[in-house]
Amino acid sequence: MKIKITEVSPRDGLQNESKIVSTEEKLLFINKLMESGLEHIEVTSFVRKDRIPQLSDSNELSQLLTDDIKSKSSVLVPNLIGYENALKNGYKEIAIFTAASDSFTKKNINMSIKESIKSFEDISKRALIDGIRIRVYISTVLYCPYEGYINPSKVLETINLLENFLPYEISLGDTIGAGVPSDTEKLLNLLLNKYPSNLFAGHFHDTYGMAIANVAKSIELGIRSFDSSSGGLGGCPYAKGASGNLATEDLLYFLIKSGYETGVSLEKIISASNYIRKILNKDISSKTFQALIPKIEEN
Amino acid sequence: MKIKITEVSPRDGLQNESKIVSTEEKLLFINKLMESGLEHIEVTSFVRKDRIPQLSDSNELSQLLTDDIKSKSSVLVPNLIGYENALKNGYKEIAIFTAASDSFTKKNINMSIKESIKSFEDISKRALIDGIRIRVYISTVLYCPYEGYINPSKVLETINLLENFLPYEISLGDTIGAGVPSDTEKLLNLLLNKYPSNLFAGHFHDTYGMAIANVAKSIELGIRSFDSSSGGLGGCPYAKGASGNLATEDLLYFLIKSGYETGVSLEKIISASNYIRKILNKDISSKTFQALIPKIEEN
Repeated sequence: MKIKITEVSPRDGLQNESKIVSTEEKLLFINKLMESGLEHIEVTSFVRKDRIPQLSDSNELSQLLTDDIKSKSSVLVPNLIGYENALKNGYKEIAIFTAASDSFTKKNINMSIKESIKSFEDISKRALIDGIRIRVYISTVLYCPYEGYINPSKVLETINLLENFLPYEISLGDTIGAGVPSDTEKLLNLLLNKYPSNLFAGHFHDTYGMAIANVAKSIELGIRSFDSSSGGLGGCPYAKGASGNLATEDLLYFLIKSGYETGVSLEKIISASNYIRKILNKDISSKTFQALIPKIEEN
Repeated sequence: MKIKITEVSPRDGLQNESKIVSTEEKLLFINKLMESGLEHIEVTSFVRKDRIPQLSDSNELSQLLTDDIKSKSSVLVPNLIGYENALKNGYKEIAIFTAASDSFTKKNINMSIKESIKSFEDISKRALIDGIRIRVYISTVLYCPYEGYINPSKVLETINLLENFLPYEISLGDTIGAGVPSDTEKLLNLLLNKYPSNLFAGHFHDTYGMAIANVAKSIELGIRSFDSSSGGLGGCPYAKGASGNLATEDLLYFLIKSGYETGVSLEKIISASNYIRKILNKDISSKTFQALIPKIEEN
């Protein structure tokens, strides 16, 4: 059975690291990631340069990516200007974002959930005409840093608002990594009652070390697509010092050992993480990375 | 539903740390652990002083522990001399050990599995007369560092050899932390066909970040007892730099959030880990510790 991995380290990862990585280093990092066999990678975002300086080189970076890499890439866009930039740079897939908690969208983008989805309507219409695939992130599907536990019905309501968007995939984000498998099970039981399982991807943060258990539960319930970040890159902005994204290494170890197909080389992902680790001068939180890097460096 | 936690940091944890902790510091650490509400703790082992210098103060330490703590403690004993020491020091529970891989027992104690179990027969007879509870560790129940994957039938054979021992609990150890839930499921399906689920505890190492997923699967299959180590203390001797024991913090986070009763305060465990962290001068690998320590230190 094939499991899809969407690698988010160049965007979601680097955006949350304090050090700014040069365009050339990003290019090398992305090339290393692609060499591992990854087929889906979120390479950057087209946002206001002053907002996220870590990704202010998205135009320059995009010009350096090959068509092959671009065909396997998506970019995050916050608005129509970002969408136009994505289109101009030759991407075929964009990602947009909302959340299942109004407090979260209000604090982050000063809109309600409804308003945030409405703000993407123009993009949605354009994407349909331009033949651009849309991936939607929904944050805080289990817990919100401001509201606490999020009732699954709130997530379902949010998804219902997206029906005109025809997203090919909706990534369900446990943004603060607080969820446990029983939470995931309750949510998916509700969603899969109405929507097909191949509409969803699991985006579990590993803040409390629960991500793999949530992935395992999701697979049991029919989900076949997960987001992860090489080396676990990208801390959790809501808990200083804590880990954020699930590490691609840990996800791959779990998937490969469990007998699923991924098409991705664990060794090459570790090598990519090791490259970016040196540039960022930081420790890699992935346990699989820590366990295997001494063996890989020996060879 | 109540889940039992056996805290192994003072023995299994400290034994694998290079720095030797003083008896007074161990006493303070154990007291802090007990204050958290833990009801089962492996406090030390009675082994040859030259073999494991980290635990060479087991007699001195034992004299400082209160009767209340001793009634909730177990000690590891490798032979009859160790057993006599445990008895003399007032313990009511001992732990002995074997493995499901002959290569592992041969490399570690220069005996086959059968020989290792035979070597514990005198202890077993004495314990029955003395009214001492026996807990048995079986290492390498999923993977062996020398043999690789271990067939569940090999674990069953090992357990069958223990039938005269009347252990009240058998702790199933994924010693190198290489197992995934599907491995755990295969093993437990075989064992629970013959033995009751309350005979077993899960002892999952977190080397590749799989421990919580294995715990979750074990609970689904009826296991209600797990070993863990505060702060994840105790590295993996088979993979330098890698984490070993499952952190009690991560286990507790999972259990509490999943609605199980533990009787243990997560905050107090973090406080105990933080105490020993400063003495060992090391980073704590537990993700739950990393996420919560800034909040706890603020208060």
